[in-house]
Amino acid sequence: MASKFYAVIAGVGAGTGRSVALRFAQTYPVVLLARNPSNYTDIVSEIKSSGGQAIGISTDTSDPASVASAFEQIKKELPEKNLAAAIFNVGAGFAVKPFLELQASDLSASLASNAGGFFNFAQATLPSLLASVNASPPHPPTLIITGATASVRGSARFATFAAGKFAVRALGQSLAREFGPQGVHVAHVIVDGVIDIPRTKGYTVNDGKEDGKISPDAIADSYWHLHTQHRSSFTQELDLRPFVEKF
Amino acid sequence: MASKFYAVIAGVGAGTGRSVALRFAQTYPVVLLARNPSNYTDIVSEIKSSGGQAIGISTDTSDPASVASAFEQIKKELPEKNLAAAIFNVGAGFAVKPFLELQASDLSASLASNAGGFFNFAQATLPSLLASVNASPPHPPTLIITGATASVRGSARFATFAAGKFAVRALGQSLAREFGPQGVHVAHVIVDGVIDIPRTKGYTVNDGKEDGKISPDAIADSYWHLHTQHRSSFTQELDLRPFVEKF
Amino acid sequence: MASKFYAVIAGVGAGTGRSVALRFAQTYPVVLLARNPSNYTDIVSEIKSSGGQAIGISTDTSDPASVASAFEQIKKELPEKNLAAAIFNVGAGFAVKPFLELQASDLSASLASNAGGFFNFAQATLPSLLASVNASPPHPPTLIITGATASVRGSARFATFAAGKFAVRALGQSLAREFGPQGVHVAHVIVDGVIDIPRTKGYTVNDGKEDGKISPDAIADSYWHLHTQHRSSFTQELDLRPFVEKF
Amino acid sequence: MASKFYAVIAGVGAGTGRSVALRFAQTYPVVLLARNPSNYTDIVSEIKSSGGQAIGISTDTSDPASVASAFEQIKKELPEKNLAAAIFNVGAGFAVKPFLELQASDLSASLASNAGGFFNFAQATLPSLLASVNASPPHPPTLIITGATASVRGSARFATFAAGKFAVRALGQSLAREFGPQGVHVAHVIVDGVIDIPRTKGYTVNDGKEDGKISPDAIADSYWHLHTQHRSSFTQELDLRPFVEKF
Repeated sequence: MASKFYAVIAGVGAGTGRSVALRFAQTYPVVLLARNPSNYTDIVSEIKSSGGQAIGISTDTSDPASVASAFEQIKKELPEKNLAAAIFNVGAGFAVKPFLELQASDLSASLASNAGGFFNFAQATLPSLLASVNASPPHPPTLIITGATASVRGSARFATFAAGKFAVRALGQSLAREFGPQGVHVAHVIVDGVIDIPRTKGYTVNDGKEDGKISPDAIADSYWHLHTQHRSSFTQELDLRPFVEKF
Repeated sequence: MASKFYAVIAGVGAGTGRSVALRFAQTYPVVLLARNPSNYTDIVSEIKSSGGQAIGISTDTSDPASVASAFEQIKKELPEKNLAAAIFNVGAGFAVKPFLELQASDLSASLASNAGGFFNFAQATLPSLLASVNASPPHPPTLIITGATASVRGSARFATFAAGKFAVRALGQSLAREFGPQGVHVAHVIVDGVIDIPRTKGYTVNDGKEDGKISPDAIADSYWHLHTQHRSSFTQELDLRPFVEKF
Repeated sequence: MASKFYAVIAGVGAGTGRSVALRFAQTYPVVLLARNPSNYTDIVSEIKSSGGQAIGISTDTSDPASVASAFEQIKKELPEKNLAAAIFNVGAGFAVKPFLELQASDLSASLASNAGGFFNFAQATLPSLLASVNASPPHPPTLIITGATASVRGSARFATFAAGKFAVRALGQSLAREFGPQGVHVAHVIVDGVIDIPRTKGYTVNDGKEDGKISPDAIADSYWHLHTQHRSSFTQELDLRPFVEKF
Repeated sequence: MASKFYAVIAGVGAGTGRSVALRFAQTYPVVLLARNPSNYTDIVSEIKSSGGQAIGISTDTSDPASVASAFEQIKKELPEKNLAAAIFNVGAGFAVKPFLELQASDLSASLASNAGGFFNFAQATLPSLLASVNASPPHPPTLIITGATASVRGSARFATFAAGKFAVRALGQSLAREFGPQGVHVAHVIVDGVIDIPRTKGYTVNDGKEDGKISPDAIADSYWHLHTQHRSSFTQELDLRPFVEKF
């Protein structure tokens, strides 16, 4: 693969992150960020064995120093490459409890993981994405955020989770308005349903109907579509949900 | 082309309708509906000369009888084919005036063209789209609506236009919730900007910046993406706008 | 009552319209519009017996001629008075059916009653409301619309109803943006729940809990609050629902 | 004043907080929380000189210990009183900069002040508000949040501010859904414009038009209306803006 561009995906594991990595690896070398190497080593192998190029870097996106270190390593390992796409797919800080049982630490964990993590990731990637605008990229440089139902709707028992997700959406919307006119496509995706991954195999959702859980590969297809949109026709936000989901 | 499916596009002319027709014609025979044959004859020729299959039918979507007649003709001309995709791209009834200068006829024209037209089109196509669900379609049968900024935002001087567009969005959202679980993908697209077509060549928008008008081919790409989404991951609504558009 | 202003309420009956009429009649003479005199005669009596002033006029708001005639009669009966508040509380055209069982007439009934009715009412009242801006009104002249859940959300089986309600909201939002800067307060209220009126006595909603249906007097209190808002602090939209309602 | 209830307002100063305090002090003893006593001493005096009852407590709502200490002091000073209304009007953490000039500390300041502050305040007040439900309160116990345009809209240069405001709205919406059915009214107010306070005297907004800035007394009137809404008819969210504001 001779692309002079690369993509970086923060928050890879067995679901959306893996599918997005595989999808973008069809065109670009990809860098996979996750706190735990066990989350990316198999995906790196899988991409390499298909003839792609992939690097995994242990990174805590909620820690600015860890993010800075990751991007220094990227610069060393992919010295001549420009950034084509950055995907933020981190989603920790998930406490589901009645509000009066939540601790201040539940809120700060959600905010640090979601808003803080995205802030650090966006600050690290936007200068590179801006630089790519003038480097004849095949598609407009793109920053994509994985959101959730809780990004647009607060619910009983989901207060702190929604706070983190709403905050990320606020950042994403602000960045779309600031960096869109500079040629960087910032998009936010509301994933409204349960994703079909090993961890959710046992869940019965939507009455157990076939395709009642979201295929992570299907999510990746929409991310790729967002990335390839012409700059005269950017989508800022779209929703994704199983055909059987009530919404 | 041996597809046993076809697509129908209502509201073709020099812009989005033409691009969508060309895009879907790469895979399906396409039927083009417009009141005035001059709006589709060139597109039909263009598709045929590229090896595609196309039929134009003079149709007034705001008239149930005209729509019924069109679909009878389709049944005759494409007797064995199932409906894969139906696109409603009609947008007449556009009066821009201070409210107290508007006439009741401005309101009824907007409602008849937008809400009435889409109602007729949806009633004519949904039974066929439902029938296609079990006919092993390559992609989930799809009904796509072209919306506008005025679909989600009323503005001074745009009162009746917004009324028509809001009403269509209401219908689309209702149909997404009713027919999604039955396997038909209903999607609404908010086109937020000026489309780059012959009629708008003279318009200076977004300070005349390159790609400051929306490419209709780019819109068509997003419609095709919507059509090809896996049923576990349907988008109900997305926005499209030039990178320089304020929103 | 010596007010030189009056209020007009379209769509009175046993619920919101009656309560709003009684509330505004504490300050202004009120004009009650309904198609059927049986909907307003008792309310007129009730207001008069409390020392208020009220007139009922048989009016079909979906018919521009009927509306024009009503306002000519108002001019004769209240010759020196300016319009302080106009409330549109009409809600016919309510068909609840699967989409493919709906008729074109269901759509046109909803659009004519809701969008058409409000259009006619707004065209008849806005010139008077504008004239009141400079007539030292006690509160900014106000136009209030009763909306519903279906004003902001399409649902299976509610397609044509939602179309009518969305369209009214589009008109209201457009008018708020056009007439707000001219000093007329246009507000839209989303009534999200079942109203506690004689017709709904038998309905079990929200598990039959006390105050699980909306008190029409409570709605009227919020309408009065909207009317009395200072022009530096207008509300364009608010929601009203029982404390037990899921939303 | 013999009310067995009291109200608490967090974030008082020269604007909304002061007006809300004066408004609620007409009915209840009020407790004013602000970091700096200079923000409440004059208001406490003003209320007392009008025959009301007021206490000021130096409190940093972003610090759980400071909030806990404040509520212990309240319990001592108003030993027999139940909480009728709690208003969160805190709005620090306001950095307006291009995103790449923002520091991680700008984000954490906004999140700590807005989301963290509201979290602490809600955790401290909700048990008391719940307890008041059964204490025959004159109105449903109420928790009101002051929001802003940035609560529902991200903008270039306002990324971290919007993140904090979106997060508070997420918490408020979640609490409305959890505590509404328990009888506590949680409402979020979107203040969309510049408030007319000493600090903004020099600002020219809305072309300097009269009443082009929001009267804080008018805001307080709407807060009082929210507090007095019947539990069958709660508003969860409303917007407030000058009649001349574009929105």
